[in-house]
Amino acid sequence: MTVSVQTETVKEQFSGYVKKMNDFKEASGLMAWDLRTGAPRKGAKQRSEVLGTLSSEVFAMSTSEEMKTMIDTLKEEEHWYKLDDITKKSVLEVEKTYNKIANVPPEEHKAYVILTSNAEVAWEQAKEKANFASFQPYLEKIVDYNRKYAEWVGYEGNKYNALLDDFEPGLTVDVIDSVFGKLKDNLVPLVKQITDSKNDPETGFLFSHFPKENQEAFSKQILGEMQYDFDAGRLDTTVHPFCIGLNPGDVRVTTKYDESDFRTAVFGTIHEGGHALYEQNISESLVGTPLAGGTSMGIHESQSLFWENFVGRHIGFWTRYYQDLKSVAGGSFDSVDLHSFFRAINVAGPSLIRIEADELTYCLHIIARYELEKALINEELEVRDLPEAWNNKMDELLGVRPSHDGEGVLQDVHWAGGMFGYFPSYALGYVYAAQLKAAMLNDLSNFDELLEQGNLKPVKEWMTEHVHQHGKMKEPLEILKDVTGSGVDPDYLIGYLSDKYKTIYELKD
Amino acid sequence: MTVSVQTETVKEQFSGYVKKMNDFKEASGLMAWDLRTGAPRKGAKQRSEVLGTLSSEVFAMSTSEEMKTMIDTLKEEEHWYKLDDITKKSVLEVEKTYNKIANVPPEEHKAYVILTSNAEVAWEQAKEKANFASFQPYLEKIVDYNRKYAEWVGYEGNKYNALLDDFEPGLTVDVIDSVFGKLKDNLVPLVKQITDSKNDPETGFLFSHFPKENQEAFSKQILGEMQYDFDAGRLDTTVHPFCIGLNPGDVRVTTKYDESDFRTAVFGTIHEGGHALYEQNISESLVGTPLAGGTSMGIHESQSLFWENFVGRHIGFWTRYYQDLKSVAGGSFDSVDLHSFFRAINVAGPSLIRIEADELTYCLHIIARYELEKALINEELEVRDLPEAWNNKMDELLGVRPSHDGEGVLQDVHWAGGMFGYFPSYALGYVYAAQLKAAMLNDLSNFDELLEQGNLKPVKEWMTEHVHQHGKMKEPLEILKDVTGSGVDPDYLIGYLSDKYKTIYELKD
Repeated sequence: MTVSVQTETVKEQFSGYVKKMNDFKEASGLMAWDLRTGAPRKGAKQRSEVLGTLSSEVFAMSTSEEMKTMIDTLKEEEHWYKLDDITKKSVLEVEKTYNKIANVPPEEHKAYVILTSNAEVAWEQAKEKANFASFQPYLEKIVDYNRKYAEWVGYEGNKYNALLDDFEPGLTVDVIDSVFGKLKDNLVPLVKQITDSKNDPETGFLFSHFPKENQEAFSKQILGEMQYDFDAGRLDTTVHPFCIGLNPGDVRVTTKYDESDFRTAVFGTIHEGGHALYEQNISESLVGTPLAGGTSMGIHESQSLFWENFVGRHIGFWTRYYQDLKSVAGGSFDSVDLHSFFRAINVAGPSLIRIEADELTYCLHIIARYELEKALINEELEVRDLPEAWNNKMDELLGVRPSHDGEGVLQDVHWAGGMFGYFPSYALGYVYAAQLKAAMLNDLSNFDELLEQGNLKPVKEWMTEHVHQHGKMKEPLEILKDVTGSGVDPDYLIGYLSDKYKTIYELKD
Repeated sequence: MTVSVQTETVKEQFSGYVKKMNDFKEASGLMAWDLRTGAPRKGAKQRSEVLGTLSSEVFAMSTSEEMKTMIDTLKEEEHWYKLDDITKKSVLEVEKTYNKIANVPPEEHKAYVILTSNAEVAWEQAKEKANFASFQPYLEKIVDYNRKYAEWVGYEGNKYNALLDDFEPGLTVDVIDSVFGKLKDNLVPLVKQITDSKNDPETGFLFSHFPKENQEAFSKQILGEMQYDFDAGRLDTTVHPFCIGLNPGDVRVTTKYDESDFRTAVFGTIHEGGHALYEQNISESLVGTPLAGGTSMGIHESQSLFWENFVGRHIGFWTRYYQDLKSVAGGSFDSVDLHSFFRAINVAGPSLIRIEADELTYCLHIIARYELEKALINEELEVRDLPEAWNNKMDELLGVRPSHDGEGVLQDVHWAGGMFGYFPSYALGYVYAAQLKAAMLNDLSNFDELLEQGNLKPVKEWMTEHVHQHGKMKEPLEILKDVTGSGVDPDYLIGYLSDKYKTIYELKD
């Protein structure tokens, strides 16, 4: 006998269930923010227990029999056609998570959580002492798990696709190889050209003393100009700046102030502000569903990079705001003209450390990591050979070679945290940003003038209309297709970087 | 067939279960703190949803079949004798909650939560317009619920005992009537004496401009001197100061700064600091159990009042710290000697508003509320007659009469929030504090000198040993008995207040 259920009944049960999961995640998010912004040291251990409890709860709910039954029921023909689009997409979203997690043996998952937690501690010590050997056993186990994980969750084509899907759904090794190949072909020679050009901008004045309070005031001004809503967020200080969206009405940004280099705060704030605009402007209709977040790491990064570089390092932007910056810089820039300032903040060149890299070389740092982790997952490279492979890759792409592993293979926490498949998103974000910028110019052909006028509202509104509001209702490639009419296309980024840096470094074609 | 279970198995299940409830409460606590200290306005609505989800979860867990089964199993003879004291007390604690809540019809409980939530809004408007009539229908329903609640949960003797038990377990109307009766008999004439004395201290200088930053620095200094651990807490600013203990390693205090009256911040911070010392020093062994909190509202208040008045308004304390205060007061107190300062901060006299009342008259404000709410619950007074009864009571106890209900019956939020049975705790806190102080003198006969030396550590340690560490392992009356050898005894408070105020107001015996 089939028991017939009302669609509305299951739908309500499902909505309540995913809302509860969201609520637990929001509570966790606030605790994470608090731990980084000023929670008392002695309470941290117990706070981690609470975070553990909430995340176990969410994990259990994601993989419960109840969840499975709701998904299966809603997907039955008699119910499915009655559902609204948001509910349909929500069902598909949680189903995807369910299918993945349900294939991972729970005891392996649990051991992995403990492993990566310990590995992060080991990594920190290894990095400090530039001692890869002490971290190697952890990384071997982590790579081993990720190889198995790919098999558990399944993939088509390259094994690495299984991992990519967790961060950039829809993207594959084939596409990325082609995109990153073109980037390499064009950026490697361009970097060499500027290195050889001897036209490095003068940058000494960038390191003049700039009072923290004034940096904070300027950072807040720029956030406001970007249309960041301070009634739906706040700006705090942390060692590692970040943005966290708790709900669209509460999206918090942090930054840090270096009195000897104002760029850390100013460009860092604009970057995190770009992430924040995304989270603040997700449609209210998605709140409480699994769709109320950025659709992928890459699209998220396209937003932060768009604002940081395509706006914040644009000559038009500083045509409007350089005077404001000067007025709070304590006289440091009084003798520096706009053009010199603009060249200085766009200084570029090969370097060893990713997070200190400039707009031009950043993608090459990412490509190096991508190629290495793809080889690791496909068993074409073993962890013991990784440091040497890293150094060779840096040499090949950037012409620099780390003198020790602390400034080489040990510099990033991602692998210690088990985040394989994440790195490509950073470079894809650049590629997306350049594509979005090109599409934006079709609607806002006066983009340069808007920046010169400090009229950033139309720019933000364009991003809200085309990207922000949709949350996870659209996949990354869907957004790209709808906005630009095409797939991932690195030509826009290549064109943008070539034009910009040939001008700044006065290169001959 | 009886299925036999291992004691250890049920015990572990129980511990995990109550730990999870605690973790949910800690997450809620952080969200509540955040909402009051700086959460963005637009995120508040969704944050309330999250708070609602967590509190429903805790409520459901408190009253679940699973909880009932664990309690019943652990209380079986074969298991009970094997349990450690902490587990036994934990079982009794959750059983008490279970038995209460299980007797309340769920639909009545739910309606009451909504009622009080609406009533608080109605109260705020009513207070502003001094219009009792608009609040009366809400209060009638709230009183009606509390009358029924007392029947549901049961009581011995007076019906009001059922409500008292939620805030001050073990205390009864018989005891409180006797204690409050003695207080009235002694304080009413004493207040009259000082009013008639014409020896009011000069207080004008208290209202001199005192920069906020300096108040903050001084408040932090004093918190530190009290042995408040800043590695296990932090001080923030809010409209209504409070203390919240998330876990013993994270106990946060807030205060507010009035540049025209430094007393708000200084005595407010000391008061909340007293609460905080309690929560910071609960034994680590109780963390994760239902016992890791103050044992009652009254004992909690004894801690805040002890520090605020018995320490903070003591001549010895200012012998040591007056110079420090002066040095940051911007010259305001330069011509004020210690004695005049001491008299000024101890000014007393009848007033209309409880939260502005001084140490001497405060208890009379509480007694008025106690007598009225006891009459309401016992159906000896009806809500419609409450304003008149309030005014008469104020006249009788303090010799003052409100000119409108905004400064009379509508001044406190407690009844709107449904907190009947809470008020007595404030006065009991004073009574306990005086008893604890007397017991402390047996061990620390040099109490006055310790204060003069600014050596507050032995004072804090005495409180930790006798009160703080026990959390809810001991009932309020158990603490009192163990420390002082007796029950609630108002003679100590009466003696302390008589001595102090007769000196300050230079009364003849």
